[in-house]
Amino acid sequence: MNMTPENRAQALVEALPYIQKFYGKTIVIKYGGNAMIEEDIIDAAISDVVLLSLVGIRVVLVHGGGPEIAKMLEKTGKESKFINGLRYTDKETMDVVQMVLCGKINKNIVSMINKTGGRAVGVSGLDDNLLCATKLLSPDGEDLGFVGDVQKVNPAILENSLKKGLIPVVSTVASGIDDNNTYNINADTAAAKIAIALGAEKLILMTNTRGVLMDQNNEDTLIPVIKLSEIADLKQSGIIAGGMMPKIDCCVDAVENGVKRTHILDGRIPHAILIEILSHAGIGTMIL
Amino acid sequence: MNMTPENRAQALVEALPYIQKFYGKTIVIKYGGNAMIEEDIIDAAISDVVLLSLVGIRVVLVHGGGPEIAKMLEKTGKESKFINGLRYTDKETMDVVQMVLCGKINKNIVSMINKTGGRAVGVSGLDDNLLCATKLLSPDGEDLGFVGDVQKVNPAILENSLKKGLIPVVSTVASGIDDNNTYNINADTAAAKIAIALGAEKLILMTNTRGVLMDQNNEDTLIPVIKLSEIADLKQSGIIAGGMMPKIDCCVDAVENGVKRTHILDGRIPHAILIEILSHAGIGTMIL
Amino acid sequence: MNMTPENRAQALVEALPYIQKFYGKTIVIKYGGNAMIEEDIIDAAISDVVLLSLVGIRVVLVHGGGPEIAKMLEKTGKESKFINGLRYTDKETMDVVQMVLCGKINKNIVSMINKTGGRAVGVSGLDDNLLCATKLLSPDGEDLGFVGDVQKVNPAILENSLKKGLIPVVSTVASGIDDNNTYNINADTAAAKIAIALGAEKLILMTNTRGVLMDQNNEDTLIPVIKLSEIADLKQSGIIAGGMMPKIDCCVDAVENGVKRTHILDGRIPHAILIEILSHAGIGTMIL
Amino acid sequence: MNMTPENRAQALVEALPYIQKFYGKTIVIKYGGNAMIEEDIIDAAISDVVLLSLVGIRVVLVHGGGPEIAKMLEKTGKESKFINGLRYTDKETMDVVQMVLCGKINKNIVSMINKTGGRAVGVSGLDDNLLCATKLLSPDGEDLGFVGDVQKVNPAILENSLKKGLIPVVSTVASGIDDNNTYNINADTAAAKIAIALGAEKLILMTNTRGVLMDQNNEDTLIPVIKLSEIADLKQSGIIAGGMMPKIDCCVDAVENGVKRTHILDGRIPHAILIEILSHAGIGTMIL
Amino acid sequence: MNMTPENRAQALVEALPYIQKFYGKTIVIKYGGNAMIEEDIIDAAISDVVLLSLVGIRVVLVHGGGPEIAKMLEKTGKESKFINGLRYTDKETMDVVQMVLCGKINKNIVSMINKTGGRAVGVSGLDDNLLCATKLLSPDGEDLGFVGDVQKVNPAILENSLKKGLIPVVSTVASGIDDNNTYNINADTAAAKIAIALGAEKLILMTNTRGVLMDQNNEDTLIPVIKLSEIADLKQSGIIAGGMMPKIDCCVDAVENGVKRTHILDGRIPHAILIEILSHAGIGTMIL
Amino acid sequence: MNMTPENRAQALVEALPYIQKFYGKTIVIKYGGNAMIEEDIIDAAISDVVLLSLVGIRVVLVHGGGPEIAKMLEKTGKESKFINGLRYTDKETMDVVQMVLCGKINKNIVSMINKTGGRAVGVSGLDDNLLCATKLLSPDGEDLGFVGDVQKVNPAILENSLKKGLIPVVSTVASGIDDNNTYNINADTAAAKIAIALGAEKLILMTNTRGVLMDQNNEDTLIPVIKLSEIADLKQSGIIAGGMMPKIDCCVDAVENGVKRTHILDGRIPHAILIEILSHAGIGTMIL
Repeated sequence: MNMTPENRAQALVEALPYIQKFYGKTIVIKYGGNAMIEEDIIDAAISDVVLLSLVGIRVVLVHGGGPEIAKMLEKTGKESKFINGLRYTDKETMDVVQMVLCGKINKNIVSMINKTGGRAVGVSGLDDNLLCATKLLSPDGEDLGFVGDVQKVNPAILENSLKKGLIPVVSTVASGIDDNNTYNINADTAAAKIAIALGAEKLILMTNTRGVLMDQNNEDTLIPVIKLSEIADLKQSGIIAGGMMPKIDCCVDAVENGVKRTHILDGRIPHAILIEILSHAGIGTMIL
Repeated sequence: MNMTPENRAQALVEALPYIQKFYGKTIVIKYGGNAMIEEDIIDAAISDVVLLSLVGIRVVLVHGGGPEIAKMLEKTGKESKFINGLRYTDKETMDVVQMVLCGKINKNIVSMINKTGGRAVGVSGLDDNLLCATKLLSPDGEDLGFVGDVQKVNPAILENSLKKGLIPVVSTVASGIDDNNTYNINADTAAAKIAIALGAEKLILMTNTRGVLMDQNNEDTLIPVIKLSEIADLKQSGIIAGGMMPKIDCCVDAVENGVKRTHILDGRIPHAILIEILSHAGIGTMIL
Repeated sequence: MNMTPENRAQALVEALPYIQKFYGKTIVIKYGGNAMIEEDIIDAAISDVVLLSLVGIRVVLVHGGGPEIAKMLEKTGKESKFINGLRYTDKETMDVVQMVLCGKINKNIVSMINKTGGRAVGVSGLDDNLLCATKLLSPDGEDLGFVGDVQKVNPAILENSLKKGLIPVVSTVASGIDDNNTYNINADTAAAKIAIALGAEKLILMTNTRGVLMDQNNEDTLIPVIKLSEIADLKQSGIIAGGMMPKIDCCVDAVENGVKRTHILDGRIPHAILIEILSHAGIGTMIL
Repeated sequence: MNMTPENRAQALVEALPYIQKFYGKTIVIKYGGNAMIEEDIIDAAISDVVLLSLVGIRVVLVHGGGPEIAKMLEKTGKESKFINGLRYTDKETMDVVQMVLCGKINKNIVSMINKTGGRAVGVSGLDDNLLCATKLLSPDGEDLGFVGDVQKVNPAILENSLKKGLIPVVSTVASGIDDNNTYNINADTAAAKIAIALGAEKLILMTNTRGVLMDQNNEDTLIPVIKLSEIADLKQSGIIAGGMMPKIDCCVDAVENGVKRTHILDGRIPHAILIEILSHAGIGTMIL
Repeated sequence: MNMTPENRAQALVEALPYIQKFYGKTIVIKYGGNAMIEEDIIDAAISDVVLLSLVGIRVVLVHGGGPEIAKMLEKTGKESKFINGLRYTDKETMDVVQMVLCGKINKNIVSMINKTGGRAVGVSGLDDNLLCATKLLSPDGEDLGFVGDVQKVNPAILENSLKKGLIPVVSTVASGIDDNNTYNINADTAAAKIAIALGAEKLILMTNTRGVLMDQNNEDTLIPVIKLSEIADLKQSGIIAGGMMPKIDCCVDAVENGVKRTHILDGRIPHAILIEILSHAGIGTMIL
Repeated sequence: MNMTPENRAQALVEALPYIQKFYGKTIVIKYGGNAMIEEDIIDAAISDVVLLSLVGIRVVLVHGGGPEIAKMLEKTGKESKFINGLRYTDKETMDVVQMVLCGKINKNIVSMINKTGGRAVGVSGLDDNLLCATKLLSPDGEDLGFVGDVQKVNPAILENSLKKGLIPVVSTVASGIDDNNTYNINADTAAAKIAIALGAEKLILMTNTRGVLMDQNNEDTLIPVIKLSEIADLKQSGIIAGGMMPKIDCCVDAVENGVKRTHILDGRIPHAILIEILSHAGIGTMIL
């Protein structure tokens, strides 16, 4: 669409009350994995983040990296071991995870933000002990290797960056509390823990689905708002299921610990972040 | 025009480089007099100012008040005295000027900004001796009464407000340096002096014409950019003439004293301020 | 009286303990209306305020403006409407109130303080939403027009000025909480609300009587101190009556909400403010 | 004299312009030795210092201690050795000097100021290396023992105290730059060096004479102002002579190094300090 | 012993965890009297204090001065009066106490620290009213003269010095709360009160014994740790007795009021302070 | 060697003057590549860095990673292309370089420092545009791929970390100034540029040789100090040759741009860093 300068001015003015609402507030966005595929979409998301930062919103970007990690494991000829269907993270795998997350994806996102005119700084859970974890066992008690459970968040390094107007980009590896190991942390979980530690206003989990759907096969059945009290029923009826379940659990954890609002958002929609922040109705599913 | 959320997001993202460019910079806008007539237009201008402030631009709004002053003089039955065609500002007139500028227009603008979600604070040239003046004679040496010539600007009160994120709204009366009188100051001149004192990035003078026109009767002949070196010729050829002349002189004063760019802008265009700041080509005439 | 340098030094040294007592403390002084008549007296009061500010006391000056408003209404030919003996403030009247208070009286006081070597800044209840009000009905439920009841004080703008060593001079108009109107506020009430919001040490209401008198016709019957517990009796016996009643109510409100001491002071006595602050016995009536 | 509250208020208001003039400025006062005899006079001087500090003037008090030192030397049976008429400060004498200055006089002054409601802190030239000195020989090259020549002033400790609103009281012993010795420093000289290091507005040397007199035997022949250019002549003509000579030299040193004005003041006049600061004509002799 | 650079590096690295433990913590050390005899030992103690300060530990040094005071009393021919075996501190004695503590010992320690490269500042209990006291009677109600009981500690002056990285050296005289007198304070008691007021991590009392011994005649019977609950028994059995008793009482007071650990340390051991801070086992007796 | 507590205290005290000398100063240490082989040695170096940071020295650690990069290239089956003997860094190789440096080595060092009780934060040249580069050609003008030449250092992110007491660990990849590429930067060069940008006191380049040797085969011929003026001769005579040449050039660049002293240090000596900082003679070669 071609917009006249007048249209553009109008659009900005209409965004005014939303910008005012979130001015100085902290928003933690988990981005990545399957939501980070098409270049155009990524560029749009990066622009969104830079704009939010510029209008005075404190944005923390937490990224995952499943597909890239798998690619690198394959490239290095590392065979994966599975325990009851869950990947076992041995030392060698963990090294690859750390390297891809902290060295490749993190720095690439940082570069993109900086090239778009933002000021980003990459941070891992290891830096200044941002994320401290213990070993996490699988639900049925199996050893999963170096997979961690966040026990403590030291948000000083994030606070300092936010105060300086920087956008922290976070890789979710953690330092072992009881040992000298490094642990891999699920990015959704880490984002929720960070949102809690920062007293964030909003937690946004980007995915590659519309949100929670009444009928999984019909995107028109999106549930726009779910209250904590409704979640048990939605799980029982199978509407919240599969990969959506741990994401919803992260949202519940965040809301129960002071985060005002949480969102499951479709990362495939260009500028989904900006639309969510600017539009009254919102897109995706809000859990509060 | 109906804009989709996507359009709006797009518009915001397109504004990104312009917002980045002026982030933390100071822009002094002279608004008022004839540019402050239609309510819709005023509302749009107020929104523009609030938005600019919100995205981190330090805006100072300087207002005039010719029509309102005339109306009040008439209402109180005060007859105006003219000297060679220039209004003589006697003590009684000066009292009305001060009252209307500082009490009526200033506070009304402050209220409008606050109601739009900005944070404005009204300031006159008397407060903390912001503007200090001596008596100004007419070009041919006539006494014009309490009309002042700004000799000194003490911008501390503006700096403090800007640092707190407030939008200062300035009434252009001044404190006498050599006496205990209060003087009326031309608002364009005061805006230029304030822009200089603040080391402003931009000075914008709102008027009710398109800008400088090659042919006064044809708005399509707008001159978009005038360099200081071209002004003498344009005056001689009568293209810069009449009421435009003192405005251009204010711009020249500002540019010669460190203000980066100055603009004569048509206040009748809705969101003229925002369009100017956001569009590459710009509207109106830029003097630099 | 001619004082030798030794006398003057002596006087300063005797003021020492009083200055020490109030150093860094906040004193809100309501000045104006009938107390602001004779020029000498006004000059003395201005000097007092400048001196208090200089020795480290944080002074806020709240002014009224009854007589000036009446004069301007008359001048503009505005006829007043009365409801059960109370003036009805219609929109046109409110415009005059705002203009006279914020534009004339406020800026004149600011000028006088600055000329005396103090640093004053004029502030209205509209600036940065200092005073927010709802519509106030008369005691018997009549509509009085744009007369407001202060619901909220946002003292940040005063705090900032006081921190910078400035003397805020406050005009008592307020911004409507529920609407876009501006409301007139009784200056004594506003002063009390501001004193409460600032956690002031003292509230001083200047009037044109000695204070509360046992016998209204005999100034020698001044009651120097009244405790909150004695007020009901004094009202019932008619000793607190007429115009003194709302003033006393302001004092009670202030004391009940944390202001240490409140005073009704005779503005006709030159340097009444300084004498009150410096003398052990005090003049006027203290309510605590 | 009995002063009414009105008189006292008047006296305060008349002090206003003087207080304004010195607000935030630094004044170094050398007090002591022969000027510190009568208790009433001392009390008055202490009050003066506390008042000046309270009204925002940064006062540094430098004290001497000749008579007290002599008394203590006598008490401990220490015989003094003289070289060409100058007392030789051997190690044992130096110990007594340090003890009396830093332990007795300094702490007594500090106590008096605090009891009068000021906030004083005692500091010696040894603390944080405030005064660093080398050995000073007599004019004709004789060894005088532990008598020092100030080479460096580290005023941080004074600046910190002044910033906190404290009154530093300084004992003039110094730390050896080239050795581990402690040196005695002439208090007038030390005061001048400190005034220079602090960029003081004024240096005041209290003595027990009226100031510089045209005729030493006639106090009515006081010279109120001496310019640097006149000093050579006044010395040659014997008008500046004896004990006055080194004091004048200190003043010259101070003025030549940026101190605005210096004063020789008669410490026997009660409140001499306050009178000097508050009176236009001044008392004593001003060197500038 | 000759240490190679490697040894020295090793020693530093081994001190790492201890330095980390006390980084930014406050340690109050009472030093003096009998522990301040041999020059080598004093030099070692001064080095210890400078090093601790340098590695980021906030050290406050409180000193006594018994032997020096006795020497000076004798020198000035002052005869001591005793009441039931306790020295009576008359006015003349108090003057000597103040002079020796604040003027001689305090400044000598300050000089030594500064010469060793630390930055010390001498402070007495009189400065900025650091220590405020009332008259202390002997246990059986006898008048002891100007001996004081600390009622209030105003630690601002210490906090300010510590923030600037300075080492405060404290003389334990106090300002009378109810009178204008100066009082002598037991240095152990003052150190405990100061440790409490500063929320210190550690209080160290240097003595000239190993610590608390099971058998007073056998230094191998040192009790390394005593818990508060064990003290009553140890007193009853005569193991805590004599001069150790008031020291232990100071420790108890400190621990009961928030000081983490207190130590009785043998000042005759070179670098006892550093060894205590650096060694796991510790030397001396710890009360906690 | 077994050290007694007394030895250890002694060692600490002997380090005092060196610690004092570098307190608050910035030291940039390039560590890595061949100097990072044996685990014990690495642990010792990490301890050194933590200790220096703890005693108030601002340490920046710049690391290389040659051997690890080679290993990873091999593992992923990436064949290296050579141009005139220099490795060509194509896009795929650059991705591996970035990943290994920023993701593996950087985070491993950060973890080690944190586990040793320091507070480290990993930073790459991409974060907040710390290092900005253009394409670097080989000396004879060949294209080397994504090898960069540092044009600009933005040290804000390092300054902020140092102010918070953190140890920045820097990976030397850079952001393209003229394009969107990422470039590999030689770690010695980057360390020198960073030292210059920070106004560092010292630059230390760790290697696996003793320093500059007169006779390459005899470690006893170490040249302890080389002045800038001697370098041309040493190069001509072949004493500075091979891999030592670019290192020396980095040192020259640093010294010529304000870094006080630069060192080539043998990383194979345990605690080489601490020994260099603490010993008067020093080890390795100093260029100044």
